[in-house]
Amino acid sequence: MNTTLLTVTGMSCMGCVSSVKNLLSALPGVTAVDVDLASGRVEVTHDPARTDIQALRNAIEAGGYSVTV
Amino acid sequence: MNTTLLTVTGMSCMGCVSSVKNLLSALPGVTAVDVDLASGRVEVTHDPARTDIQALRNAIEAGGYSVTV
Repeated sequence: MNTTLLTVTGMSCMGCVSSVKNLLSALPGVTAVDVDLASGRVEVTHDPARTDIQALRNAIEAGGYSVTV
Repeated sequence: MNTTLLTVTGMSCMGCVSSVKNLLSALPGVTAVDVDLASGRVEVTHDPARTDIQALRNAIEAGGYSVTV
């Protein structure tokens, strides 16, 4: 299990936070998602063999949010 | 081309609106999406043979929003 830290821009309320959490939690092998609205910091615990970092980024971007790191 | 009207709850800012628009626009055969934050009204123009109403609902719910109608 890996922990990946991403910085996400475009989240402006708790609805956005919930949206990002849902999009990531739906991916295979993702076991935990923690999102901080103020900093945009997203911490994802996932099995990298099932969902790699690019897949995490794609899911966030599908929701119209941007990943800066 | 069909126009489907849905009522979505859980959107609380323009970031949420943008998220719903992005999720729907990514579906095959969707040509236009209009979202009103205040009312939760979402109007989608789509080819029903490529993306049916259930697929629209699924995409919205993947983002953690709810479809009430």
